[in-house]
Amino acid sequence: MPISMVFRANSINHTPFFPNPTKTHFLSPQNLLHFYKKTPLKNHIGEFSCSSPGPVVVGLAADSGCGKTTFMKRLTSVFGGAPKADHNHQNPDSNTLITDTTTVICLDDYHLLDRKERKEKGVTALHPRANNFDLMFEQIKALKHGFPIEKPIYNHATGLLDPPELIHPPKILVLEGLHPLYDSRVRDLLDFSIYLDISNEVKFSWKIQRDMAERGHSLESVRASIQARKSDFDAYIEPQKQYASVVMEVLPTQLIPDDTERKVLRVRLIMKESGVKNFQPIYIFDEGSTVSWVPCGRKLTCSYPGIKFFCGPEAFFENEVTVLEMDGEFDKLEELVYVEGHLCNVSTKFYGEVTQQMLKNCDFEGSNNGTGFFQTLIALKIRDLYEQVAMGNGVGDGVGVGSLASTK
Amino acid sequence: MPISMVFRANSINHTPFFPNPTKTHFLSPQNLLHFYKKTPLKNHIGEFSCSSPGPVVVGLAADSGCGKTTFMKRLTSVFGGAPKADHNHQNPDSNTLITDTTTVICLDDYHLLDRKERKEKGVTALHPRANNFDLMFEQIKALKHGFPIEKPIYNHATGLLDPPELIHPPKILVLEGLHPLYDSRVRDLLDFSIYLDISNEVKFSWKIQRDMAERGHSLESVRASIQARKSDFDAYIEPQKQYASVVMEVLPTQLIPDDTERKVLRVRLIMKESGVKNFQPIYIFDEGSTVSWVPCGRKLTCSYPGIKFFCGPEAFFENEVTVLEMDGEFDKLEELVYVEGHLCNVSTKFYGEVTQQMLKNCDFEGSNNGTGFFQTLIALKIRDLYEQVAMGNGVGDGVGVGSLASTK
Repeated sequence: MPISMVFRANSINHTPFFPNPTKTHFLSPQNLLHFYKKTPLKNHIGEFSCSSPGPVVVGLAADSGCGKTTFMKRLTSVFGGAPKADHNHQNPDSNTLITDTTTVICLDDYHLLDRKERKEKGVTALHPRANNFDLMFEQIKALKHGFPIEKPIYNHATGLLDPPELIHPPKILVLEGLHPLYDSRVRDLLDFSIYLDISNEVKFSWKIQRDMAERGHSLESVRASIQARKSDFDAYIEPQKQYASVVMEVLPTQLIPDDTERKVLRVRLIMKESGVKNFQPIYIFDEGSTVSWVPCGRKLTCSYPGIKFFCGPEAFFENEVTVLEMDGEFDKLEELVYVEGHLCNVSTKFYGEVTQQMLKNCDFEGSNNGTGFFQTLIALKIRDLYEQVAMGNGVGDGVGVGSLASTK
Repeated sequence: MPISMVFRANSINHTPFFPNPTKTHFLSPQNLLHFYKKTPLKNHIGEFSCSSPGPVVVGLAADSGCGKTTFMKRLTSVFGGAPKADHNHQNPDSNTLITDTTTVICLDDYHLLDRKERKEKGVTALHPRANNFDLMFEQIKALKHGFPIEKPIYNHATGLLDPPELIHPPKILVLEGLHPLYDSRVRDLLDFSIYLDISNEVKFSWKIQRDMAERGHSLESVRASIQARKSDFDAYIEPQKQYASVVMEVLPTQLIPDDTERKVLRVRLIMKESGVKNFQPIYIFDEGSTVSWVPCGRKLTCSYPGIKFFCGPEAFFENEVTVLEMDGEFDKLEELVYVEGHLCNVSTKFYGEVTQQMLKNCDFEGSNNGTGFFQTLIALKIRDLYEQVAMGNGVGDGVGVGSLASTK
């Protein structure tokens, strides 16, 4: 009979194998070595039920206000399973989203310094010094091997580190935040990774929209807040995109000459050609060809400035990639099936599934442009990757881990 | 038992129904009314064997030195049937090309004025006054209705009008020359028409190549000869392209910035969307979409400056057209099957037939660029059109005419 194990927080056993801090407010460097461990994992693998493979781990890197939340909603919509409403009873400020299949962890929870401490030390949340990568690595590794963790919570409302929450290993684990690809140890645990790359022009326009219109900030304060983050962003966040399986670039449209409104977006999905197990890039028309495509106006309604797709091989950092690009906006989502029908390597289960997903979530932000469309395509790719793993293709170090949902 | 009829020249019956001049040197306007006719055709249709429909009539308009001969070779190669070597025994200077299936008539044979007369009157061969459209119409009409004609011969060597030759109605009748689309009566007899539109830059470069390198003319004399024809060309030849079923434009490449060599060509096939019975335009990827395509370099070898295709709907004169464009040159013709596989509405009988035709005629001029490729595509389209007619779809006024090859 399989034996289940729980690695709880508040342990007195300090062997530094799977780190679980006793309290989140202990997350200072000197407390990092307070770990709980019954016994090294490798000796215990055989004791787990191995009915399904270990969780597929997905990293989603992006700055704040870049649409991660919408992306996660599309992702969990594809995976299916209702959100578990009871998880956040413990702490309503928990950042973790849990559904039947998926757990989304916000990496802000691995902040090493709270808001006050960052201010005192003059360190932004973007700086690696403000984040606990050792703990992040150990806990993600634990989850990947099928062990539950007690993860700290960074309270975005108070700016403080709250007491930890118990997280069980899910089928699909998503790490969203500023640094999922920063630490090479964490990176090596990922099966798939996405970098949301919002161009400065669009980011500025979005922040103005949110911070000025919705929060009453001044244009100058928005500009100053972006400027204050820029140097750390350039140094620690942006370089991560070279490691991502796919990068989603959001840029100003090229369909409107001298556009300053930034309402119409050009979105580019930059997909690695090789090196990502169980993933094949999406393309239009013919693999390896460079194609630009303005869809037939009789089949796809689009008002000014129209819609244009592009697809082709490019070089991105050191990698060969396939780029899929969409510029413009959809007028009628139900016509999307025409576009869907011309995409190859889309990991749908039936013809029209992308369109069905888009229609189902039509009230989500970006549904009429490439952000929503490509988020949906990526979500389907991740589902496919998960299913290939589940069917025994193997992933990472191939540890088979049973469902731990019932462990305590 | 079907009765066959021959409308011979040298008749004394002058009813102006199917004109056959008694002698070609009588081709002055006052002799146009010397016709031979047994009885009006409509009363005789029932007397012909109707095993096959009337000849499909194809017009090919182009200036001299624009590659009509190569085009005709590709056309007859697709239609099959060996050239009939014995036809020209009568007059070795006959311009007519006859195979088992196809007869190609050169419309120069309808010159009204010989070279000397044109010179005396200061009229170029491009001017309608130098051509006998009444006779052209009557004779093409006769052939289309299944009657043989005695057609004049313009002797390109002597510049004189030679005695006529007997032409039987073929399965496919091609009218090649300067004015197949000039006269609306002749135009109405055509089932399909092509205008070869060589841009001035390319034409100049071709003429220099031919007239300077091969015939020892000076650059100035080449320039002067083009200039001398320009005004009539613009007035009487070029306007015909608005009537063509397809226009094949040959332009300088856009792949080499500031190209002056004119070796690499950009070729555009402008195909009418509607109004041409039994013809559907070729397209790439998706009908009605605008697509530019740079083929995958791993599947299609191409050295500098590469190959680029384009396809999309456009407006041409008053018509909606589909434009298929190829810029660049093929390195390896056998790889063409990859391009062929991505074309839609190509009227092949089996996968790879375009490539097979191109390989078979690889020593023809233009085989490595869009001229040869598109000539082959058009030839297949005409074969398809012929076969649709033969299968009873009907063409023109739908006159069914039996083989008159054995008539005397």
